[in-house]
Amino acid sequence: MHKSTANTEPGRGNFFEDFHFGQVLHHATPRTITDGDCSLYIALTGSRQPMHCAQPVAHALGYRDRTVDDLLAFHIAFGKTVPDISVNAVANLGYANVKFVRPVYPGDTLSTTSTVIGLKQNSNGANGVVYVHSVSHNQNRQPILEWVRWVMVHKQNTSLPAPATVIPELDAYVAPDTLSIPDFADFHRFETKVTGSQKLWNDYQRSERINHPAGMTVDDSDHTMATRLYQNNARLHFDALMMKDTQFGRRLMYGGHVISLCRALSYDGLENAIGIAAINAGTHSNPCFGGDTIYTWTEVLDCWELPGRQDLGALRLRMVGLKNLPARELQNTHTEQNGRQVYHPNVVLDLDYTVLMPRR
Amino acid sequence: MHKSTANTEPGRGNFFEDFHFGQVLHHATPRTITDGDCSLYIALTGSRQPMHCAQPVAHALGYRDRTVDDLLAFHIAFGKTVPDISVNAVANLGYANVKFVRPVYPGDTLSTTSTVIGLKQNSNGANGVVYVHSVSHNQNRQPILEWVRWVMVHKQNTSLPAPATVIPELDAYVAPDTLSIPDFADFHRFETKVTGSQKLWNDYQRSERINHPAGMTVDDSDHTMATRLYQNNARLHFDALMMKDTQFGRRLMYGGHVISLCRALSYDGLENAIGIAAINAGTHSNPCFGGDTIYTWTEVLDCWELPGRQDLGALRLRMVGLKNLPARELQNTHTEQNGRQVYHPNVVLDLDYTVLMPRR
Amino acid sequence: MHKSTANTEPGRGNFFEDFHFGQVLHHATPRTITDGDCSLYIALTGSRQPMHCAQPVAHALGYRDRTVDDLLAFHIAFGKTVPDISVNAVANLGYANVKFVRPVYPGDTLSTTSTVIGLKQNSNGANGVVYVHSVSHNQNRQPILEWVRWVMVHKQNTSLPAPATVIPELDAYVAPDTLSIPDFADFHRFETKVTGSQKLWNDYQRSERINHPAGMTVDDSDHTMATRLYQNNARLHFDALMMKDTQFGRRLMYGGHVISLCRALSYDGLENAIGIAAINAGTHSNPCFGGDTIYTWTEVLDCWELPGRQDLGALRLRMVGLKNLPARELQNTHTEQNGRQVYHPNVVLDLDYTVLMPRR
Repeated sequence: MHKSTANTEPGRGNFFEDFHFGQVLHHATPRTITDGDCSLYIALTGSRQPMHCAQPVAHALGYRDRTVDDLLAFHIAFGKTVPDISVNAVANLGYANVKFVRPVYPGDTLSTTSTVIGLKQNSNGANGVVYVHSVSHNQNRQPILEWVRWVMVHKQNTSLPAPATVIPELDAYVAPDTLSIPDFADFHRFETKVTGSQKLWNDYQRSERINHPAGMTVDDSDHTMATRLYQNNARLHFDALMMKDTQFGRRLMYGGHVISLCRALSYDGLENAIGIAAINAGTHSNPCFGGDTIYTWTEVLDCWELPGRQDLGALRLRMVGLKNLPARELQNTHTEQNGRQVYHPNVVLDLDYTVLMPRR
Repeated sequence: MHKSTANTEPGRGNFFEDFHFGQVLHHATPRTITDGDCSLYIALTGSRQPMHCAQPVAHALGYRDRTVDDLLAFHIAFGKTVPDISVNAVANLGYANVKFVRPVYPGDTLSTTSTVIGLKQNSNGANGVVYVHSVSHNQNRQPILEWVRWVMVHKQNTSLPAPATVIPELDAYVAPDTLSIPDFADFHRFETKVTGSQKLWNDYQRSERINHPAGMTVDDSDHTMATRLYQNNARLHFDALMMKDTQFGRRLMYGGHVISLCRALSYDGLENAIGIAAINAGTHSNPCFGGDTIYTWTEVLDCWELPGRQDLGALRLRMVGLKNLPARELQNTHTEQNGRQVYHPNVVLDLDYTVLMPRR
Repeated sequence: MHKSTANTEPGRGNFFEDFHFGQVLHHATPRTITDGDCSLYIALTGSRQPMHCAQPVAHALGYRDRTVDDLLAFHIAFGKTVPDISVNAVANLGYANVKFVRPVYPGDTLSTTSTVIGLKQNSNGANGVVYVHSVSHNQNRQPILEWVRWVMVHKQNTSLPAPATVIPELDAYVAPDTLSIPDFADFHRFETKVTGSQKLWNDYQRSERINHPAGMTVDDSDHTMATRLYQNNARLHFDALMMKDTQFGRRLMYGGHVISLCRALSYDGLENAIGIAAINAGTHSNPCFGGDTIYTWTEVLDCWELPGRQDLGALRLRMVGLKNLPARELQNTHTEQNGRQVYHPNVVLDLDYTVLMPRR
């Protein structure tokens, strides 16, 4: 006989003891990215990059269609890993080695797989750190995007033994000679009139700082709609009732959406940064909420030539996101608190990433 | 000579005396459903069903494209009937026999027609009940969706005689042998990795209850945007000024959107419910407003084999929607009030519907 | 040697002294308009025009696809001019001669160019008026949309001499024999059942006033999302922190979006106004903000036959937009204030435009 009122526990996710070294997780559900997603991304971020907005611009350079915004593809691929990796996370500790390997075109379908590449139980025995290497493939089984991420996850059954500690070695940044450069595209054909700025790779210099002038106020509908579009179902972004009893008191904005907003705001000053090649590291130093106004500045960390390319260079950039404080009004990301350097309370993002830019 | 300042009364709609038995109404305006609508539906509900999100998944099963979410098609078809049927409604009394007849694909255009199949003037003479049978066709004149609905409508000219009373007989539910099952599709090819759950039709049992864990806070922008997308122009969803003077005091959420939210929230626990075959009945027991957080539970009412199909079964489900109360915190939909059983004030939806699910 | 911490000033825009007569500005960035944009436009405005929503309706009349809503195309084309023309505007003074020259289809890419056709420095020497003629082309270099606009712009370097004053002559309205009428389309094939109204061109008369019944409350997410979709980056629509210190105290709704809302609300009563041929003039008499409820009425200014067309006529209309006051509750747009006739404080829009409508 069957139980009459069985209660099941769906959406349970994985706890620390459920992960083991070398484990491969196939994440549900595959997702076809369409023109509709691209339009929504524009409407939610204000993005104006011509490679993602204008088919003829992409065609002229050798692409078969306009491309899906790199961050839109990333957020969708990333969102798919949440139910398996981070639904029981104590904290999202970091990510690195985010490589944009191939263009994504409207109509492509992304499927994402993660491999456990590191484990370390914490000394309290109550949780541990899981490192995963995730790869997203298109419908032709070509990798289009990969990254490493580490999260602290609750251990449910604390009586189980700790796994052997493995901590992967991670590069501080994605080296220029390992970036994926579109070999089919010729950026000598790039016309600056499509972006409105004649400032090209050659015109940027190390240590230069750009205060992007625009600010964007984000309402709760905006960030929750974006995060649903990304099919990232982490509950703290959506459930205001549940969040009322937390330290935040309200729904938390998905940190990835903050990256998108800063990237869109940085268009004025980085108009010709036509695509993202890598994200080297990122810190979400303070939370963002509905009603916050986001600003951003950029510092040029490095200007890299690319092997064999006279038409294209790379810039390693530091993008700093702020809430409720224009970029020109803050000089340093850090401030002293009880003798320690901590992030200024208005700094919400500190991202180290690499863009591609045409050169003259 | 023409009148110099004629005032016309557009959007008047039909009153009780305008309906007659057997009358056929062709509803404006036809609507092409596109990838854009599908993306917005994901962004507004958080839906993750792979049949609607991933073209290769649909292809592998024998569909010619990913399908439009059943409820998105329903809301658009339904919205078209509002100006003719319910703009003067006192109350939307019920719906039944909602049958999803054929898949809708992005690019299909829906046109909807209603036939008056019942009329009953109320004893007060001031209003009456109209029953309509509505069918939505695609551009190839194939029926894709049908339903019966009854509404109480104001009578404007109360001096007109009452029509003969006709009350249609309605089945309590859509019988399993009358469900439209996609005969071209082979669900033996279905892979559970695309949904992330190995729980198939065989694993559900009658009386089982599933408390879906996630909650979704809905802001006014979310539900009004959804209802505009559905082109449902019932004014009580949109006009906050008009609603200020009603019992509600504010804009009312479209009940159909609550169904969509509950369906999306029920993904965790019903991952392999790949499509809706029928809606048998539904009660919108309490109103929802912007700011409410929606939760849901599901009870399995019946597990049906389908004639001639070893790859697919049907589940008749009861989906209960709640506002501002997680599903695990409420045992019963009803509570006693003055000696009567009434819906608990946090229960907003009680839906009886039938899904298709692959079996092993 | 390079400067170590150069600060650049991106997004500076043009000041009065940067404009000269005959100057041509190529606006960044080209934009492909897709099905996704069209769906968002429906979701943001509630538009129901069948030419834009239903492919078979457009096909039957001779169009190669459903068309992009005229105002969506206009807003996108217009938005592109903001960084070059009006980012330093003291005031947007007016626009005229807006001509919709050719249909825009999903997939078309718009590029916009402006020519300076007039300049007049104000006597204070601190600013001046710039007149531009803007044209938007599709990917086949066919003009699809053009307009004249004049803005008052700050002069940064007031020591520079004033330019020669040139004030272009502008017609009061676009004459009927200069309207672009689709010569490939046959509106004898138009079926009124697709719009739900049998009221055609012949049935309207001069001076007729239509109080459109519906109201639409607009939240901050709605109008900011729309304005981002249009890629109009004027900061006063987005930056609540910056706006807190202005006379408005909050984000200002883009006036073009108010036109779109009124156009959508006017569907009930103008169902067969299948497209916009021209905008003759427009006044945004009062600002709109998130939370406002928009209503509208229409007055018929003129009923024009079109040369050589028995299937189609034109109506010159005055569309009046109101906030927080239903159309039936206001008789006149103007009211007396200190002996002067000024716009009633609830009147937000006074638009003179021309639509095409099938005739019998």
